[in-house]
Order: sequence, then C-alpha cells, then structure tokens
Amino acid sequence: MIEAFDAVDLIKTKRDHGILTTEQIDWLVDAYTRGVIADEQMSAMTMAILLNGMSRDEIRDLTMAMIATGERLDFSGLSKRTTDKHSTGGVGDKITLPLAPLVASFGVAVPQLSGRGLGHTGGTLDKLESIPGWRAQLSNDEFMAQLDAVGAVICAAGSGLAPADGKLYALRDITGTVESIPLIASSIMSKKIAEGTAALVLDVKFGSGAFMRDPAKARELAETMVRLGQDAGVATRALLTNMNVPLGLAIGNANEVRESVEVLAGGGPADVVELTLALAREMLDLAGMPDADVEGHLAGGQAMDTWRAMISAQGGDPDAALPSPKETQVVSADRDGILVTQEALPFGIAAWRLGAGRARKEDPVHHAAGIDLHVKPGDAVTKGDPLFTLATDDPARFERAIEALEGAYRIGDEVSPVEDGGPLIADRIG
Amino acid sequence: MIEAFDAVDLIKTKRDHGILTTEQIDWLVDAYTRGVIADEQMSAMTMAILLNGMSRDEIRDLTMAMIATGERLDFSGLSKRTTDKHSTGGVGDKITLPLAPLVASFGVAVPQLSGRGLGHTGGTLDKLESIPGWRAQLSNDEFMAQLDAVGAVICAAGSGLAPADGKLYALRDITGTVESIPLIASSIMSKKIAEGTAALVLDVKFGSGAFMRDPAKARELAETMVRLGQDAGVATRALLTNMNVPLGLAIGNANEVRESVEVLAGGGPADVVELTLALAREMLDLAGMPDADVEGHLAGGQAMDTWRAMISAQGGDPDAALPSPKETQVVSADRDGILVTQEALPFGIAAWRLGAGRARKEDPVHHAAGIDLHVKPGDAVTKGDPLFTLATDDPARFERAIEALEGAYRIGDEVSPVEDGGPLIADRIG
Repeated sequence: MIEAFDAVDLIKTKRDHGILTTEQIDWLVDAYTRGVIADEQMSAMTMAILLNGMSRDEIRDLTMAMIATGERLDFSGLSKRTTDKHSTGGVGDKITLPLAPLVASFGVAVPQLSGRGLGHTGGTLDKLESIPGWRAQLSNDEFMAQLDAVGAVICAAGSGLAPADGKLYALRDITGTVESIPLIASSIMSKKIAEGTAALVLDVKFGSGAFMRDPAKARELAETMVRLGQDAGVATRALLTNMNVPLGLAIGNANEVRESVEVLAGGGPADVVELTLALAREMLDLAGMPDADVEGHLAGGQAMDTWRAMISAQGGDPDAALPSPKETQVVSADRDGILVTQEALPFGIAAWRLGAGRARKEDPVHHAAGIDLHVKPGDAVTKGDPLFTLATDDPARFERAIEALEGAYRIGDEVSPVEDGGPLIADRIG
Repeated sequence: MIEAFDAVDLIKTKRDHGILTTEQIDWLVDAYTRGVIADEQMSAMTMAILLNGMSRDEIRDLTMAMIATGERLDFSGLSKRTTDKHSTGGVGDKITLPLAPLVASFGVAVPQLSGRGLGHTGGTLDKLESIPGWRAQLSNDEFMAQLDAVGAVICAAGSGLAPADGKLYALRDITGTVESIPLIASSIMSKKIAEGTAALVLDVKFGSGAFMRDPAKARELAETMVRLGQDAGVATRALLTNMNVPLGLAIGNANEVRESVEVLAGGGPADVVELTLALAREMLDLAGMPDADVEGHLAGGQAMDTWRAMISAQGGDPDAALPSPKETQVVSADRDGILVTQEALPFGIAAWRLGAGRARKEDPVHHAAGIDLHVKPGDAVTKGDPLFTLATDDPARFERAIEALEGAYRIGDEVSPVEDGGPLIADRIG
C-alpha cells in the first residue's frame, strides 16, 4: 500500500507549530491503528501536541478520526431522547449513581457507558459491583432493551468504540503525554460521540482531588470539550466543579452506593444533592425539559423507582445488604474547634490504599474498603468527636492509609477561614 | 534490578521545563542502552528536549553519559600532540582531505574518524574510497602505528565509541527529533571526546547547503559545542562558515579527491585553499604552533608528502588513476552576464541523484558521479560558455539531476549583486 503521508513529515509539522490538515490527521490515526506509524513516532507526535497544542479544527479532526476507527452506536430507533453525562473524576464522586435514574425518571434515555477506577479516583462500575448480582457487561440488545424499558443504563463500554483511543491512551500513559488538553478532550469526546448521544453534560473538576488541579486548565478543558461536542453535532454543556474536598461523606465503593441510595430517598449530603440536581437540570434542559421538577422526583420516589428497575434489570438486588468491612478504625478530634481543611487527594489516596482502588488494571477492588467522613469543612467539633472512619478487609493497610492523611485535615479556631476552595459549582460553560 | 528513577518522571520533568540532574541523565542513557527505557519513552523525551531545550550542565551530562556507554581511546602513549577537526557537512566539503596531511606535516597527530555520506552531503570515507586500494577500516594497532609514523589517519569510526549515540540517532531520525541543538551537539561531541583528542576545531556551516541553514542557529550550535569541549577538557574552537555556495569546483567523490590533490600541490580553488589554511592555523594554534607556515607546507610539498604516506599506509595508490564517469553532460550559459547565484543545496541534491550519494545506508556510491563547476558566483560568462558538467555512470539519472538544478543558478547583468551569502568565514568562536 502506498501511504498518503510520511510520519516524520507530520511530526515535524506539529513540532514546528504547524497545523495538520484533516487528511493528515485521518491518515495519522488510521496508520497508527494499522501499525504503519510506530509507537516511538506517535509518542514524539503526542509530546509535540502536548507542548505546542492543537487548533480547534485539529482537535475535531483527531476526535472524528479516532471515532472512525471503530463502531458507532445508533439510538435513532429509540422513542426517547438520549442525554449523557461525563465526569473527569474525583474523590467520592458517585454522582452518576443517583443522577442517571433521576434523569431517566423523566422519560429520557441515559446511556451511561462507564469505566473502572485506576489510582485515587474511583470507577462507577467498581461501585455498582458492590451490589450483589449486578453485572456491568450487557450485550447490545440488552443495552437497547433496557434503555427503552427503564431509560437508565450504567454499563461497561465495549472496546468497539474508538479503539484508536485505547491504543493511544496506553502509549500516553507510559510516555508522560497524558496531560494534554487536546488529547484528553479528544479521548473523552471520541467515546461519547461514538456512543451516539444527542446531548451531553460534562462535570469538569478542578482542585486537589481532580485530574486537572488548576481551575484555569479545567476551564480550558471544559471549553475545548464543549466546542468539540458542538462541532460534532452533540448538544454539550459543562459545569466546572470544585474537587478540593471529597464529594459527600463516603469514599469507597459500597459506602458510595449507600450514600447514593440516601440521595435517591430524598436525603444524603448537601453537596451530593446539589451537584446531582444541577447536573440533572442541565441534562433535562438539553433534552427539552427545562422546567422538570428534579427535587420532586427525589422526594416523590420516582428516581428511586427507576434506580431499583435499573439495578434489577442488570441482575442486581436493590434490597440486598451491601458488603461490610472486616475492620474499621476511627480517627477522632484531638482538640475543640472548626474543621478547616479536608483535602480530597490524600483522602482519595488513603481510600485507595485501604483497598477501595486498584494500582494495576488487573487488580480487584475491595468493595467494603474506604472512608466514611463524619464532618465536613466548616463543621464544629469537640475533642474526642469522630472525624472519619477507615474501613478495610486487611488491617495491615491502616498504617499506610493514615500516613497518606498526614496534614490532610486540620482543626482550627472558631474564626479560622474554611479552606475548601470556594463554592461547589464554580461555573457553567456552553 | 531496582531502577534508580522512573522514565515517565524524567520525561515529565523535561516536558515541564525542569532540569535533569547528573544522576538522572546518567540513568536515562544507561537504562535506554539496557532497554529498560523503551524507544517510545525516549522519543517523547527527545521531543521534549527539542522543544524545551537543555541547560549547559544537562548537555555536558548527556554527552558524558553517552561516552560512558562505550570505550574511550587513549593517545597518551603517543609522542605527538593530537588535534582533530569536525565539519557539520556541506556540499563539496572535501576539506578534511588536504587538511589532515597539512596539519600532520608539522608533527601533529590528526586522528580523523570519519563517516559516510547520507543525503545531499558527501562522506569523507566515500570520497577516499575512490582511490584504488584505499581502505577505511583499520585495527586499533594499525591506527596507532599510522598516527605515530605518518601523523594523519582518516578512517572509519568503530562502533565502540559512544554506542548510545548510535541508538539514539537512529531513533531521532524516524521521530522528527534530529534538529535539536543539545542533541546534535552531544551526538557530535560524545564521539570526539571519546576519541581522546586533546584539541578540536569545528567547522560549523550555515546556509542553503548546510544542515543548519540559519546562521543564528549555526552559531548557537558552535557555541554549544565549544563550551561542551571546554567542559570536557578538550581545547575547542569553531569557525562559522558559509555554505550557501558549493565549496570548490568539484562535488562528488573522485573529483573531490582530484581537487584536494590540487590544493596539496599548491593550487586548487581559492575558497578550498582559504578554508583549509584557516582550519589548519586553528588546529596548529591549539597544538602550540601559532606561527606554523601553513602556506609554506602546501607550496613546499610537505603536505603532499604526508598525503602520499597517509594514502599508502591505508593500502591506497596515490599515483593510480581515479575512476572516470561513463557519461557526462555539459550545461552552458544561455546569455552573456555574471553568474550571480549558485545554490549549494540543489547542486548537492543533483550530485546525489547522479549517484555520488546514497539514499539508504546500505546503498553503494558511484565514485565517478558528481558535478564539476566551471564558474563560481561573480565570474563573467559569455553565451555558450560551459557552466558545469554533470557526470554519472547511468545516463537515466541526468533528467532528475537537471530537475533539481531548476532555479539553482542564475546569470545576471554586470551590475547584479552576487548572491553568495557573504564571506566564506563568517566568524570564529572560542
């Protein structure tokens, strides 16, 4: 086969701050997928992209080229509108669990193709797998039938969507080229666009527990993804949200399911409820229901009914007891005062070390492991009050978890300013 | 083996404009040589180096780390001082041929480890191999004995010097990361320092026929290499020279040997003589002979005697006839006027297409192929005067050679300014 372009020429173009054409990017992605472009060439290209950036057109072309390497789902046969949500990931981020059934309870289809956790941020599938019987793998037919009947589906993404993205991500992971906004945006959006949703709401997080710590970078990523969605014909909107403090009181798997069910029952921590409602409003707005009574569907039980139907449809028992940890350890306040700091990243790392997360893709997670917070920044505490409880199946893990929490929380005087990085929802884009 | 560092951490450091420590660079080069760092990781690193640069200390550390992967030659047993020359390569650059014997005729050892040509710039070994019987490969013992007896040796570099450089260069070649001053400087200097010379004169070329077209970039490269030599204890100096016009009248292999012998006989084109003398003066100055009568050793035959001894010592017959081309084609002036342009790069490409150079490492060169120029910029010509003669063993090659020369030379009016890019020797550094 005579190749249309030369890999070294394209690398040099990007290296020298040039713009790649649609044809060049199509070839780049296709030739890399075929193995004509070697990994060492693609990694030089990704470093050049990371350092020199990509234009809006290039990002769109890259995304569409990755989509073209795989299959695309088609929801046009559904009688419902579809709308999807994606979070860039955070500590205690279980929002998908109450959100998908809440939105679906209004007759909207929510096809939520999710992943597993790696590192300090949890994975939605890992959390749901703590429900006895629940399974993440669905056939295409099961997926479509459940979308039609229940509306909400949270399941594993097949490898058929944008396979070039999987190959490229594995390369970026070992070559220091993950942290590139054009590459992150095209990686996330290629799968969401291939999935075929009509509308998409992004929860782009910033702060210590987020992938993008810098709010300005998070905003740039959000703006890039919103433009990219619009360029591809997907109605896209983003909320910029604060991940300096863990979301809710539960960090782990089974405990996050428990907290999600509390929200679906009309209770739950204020921050989880606030973000669930805000994202639900955006999704329903894009689905043509700007006035949907989202609080009403939590209070009235419609969201809970959809949750139960969704869990049952995937083999889970919504009434089954969730796994309990073998060992727990409570950490208490050593003085009176106000909790002024509760840093997301160390709490995420501690939960991970307790067994809630995995270090390697092939590791299992411990569904009962994690952390339950008893207070949030701004709360008054008295000496001896429990601050948080660590849970694990393996008590040898406590030591390194507590190590991770060194300096992560602080009790100050009554007048100390709370260090939580500001409001939960910082901005709305798109 | 527990590794001292993590490849991804080092890539991220350089990516984020950080400075790598001596220990990190030592590990980087060693681990890459051992295969612990994968090609795709090293190519991301080289792209980060190309785009973000390296400090003076990093460049020195990289050079010393590459030297440490191989053997070092030791000339301390020689009774003579050693001094070496390196050119960054150009069109018609045969200066090593007259220069090495000229300098050696003063009792200085000139250990000239050379390469073969690739692309439009010729290789010194390719040129010398047009002499019947001459061989480029010498054993270490032969090399030392010839240095001692004759003083001048031009031979192939063994693969034992800085082998990491060979592996890294092959990677850079396919990943668009050749054009990095820190990487070029460390590549050239690692071999020169490992070679063990006490002094080194660099001929760093700029202009259309040079690797570095931009004079400012060539100056930066020269300054980087001079500092690097000084940091490694090698007395180093550089001349910045103009490669907008071919050097001399011969471009090829056998014809360049012929022109070199003319210079050694006291004749030859003015520019070749000027550069040979200038480089010889610098080399002899660094060897402690600032007042050596270099013109005298060309006029008096001492340089020619050393040439004959050098060629004979390597099996060559200095009196043998050099190969002649099977076919020639003369291009003549189509008007009266002054030759105002003679661009080095297209003439180099044309000679290469005629068979003087190779496209792939394993290709042979045609020793008689090339171009003889009959006029130089500034010369007056009359319609019908021969401008240059193309020579090849394969007449099918004329067409593409002439194609390459489209617009490469121009006859102007008597008052037209000559476009030769200024004086031959633009500056002296170090």
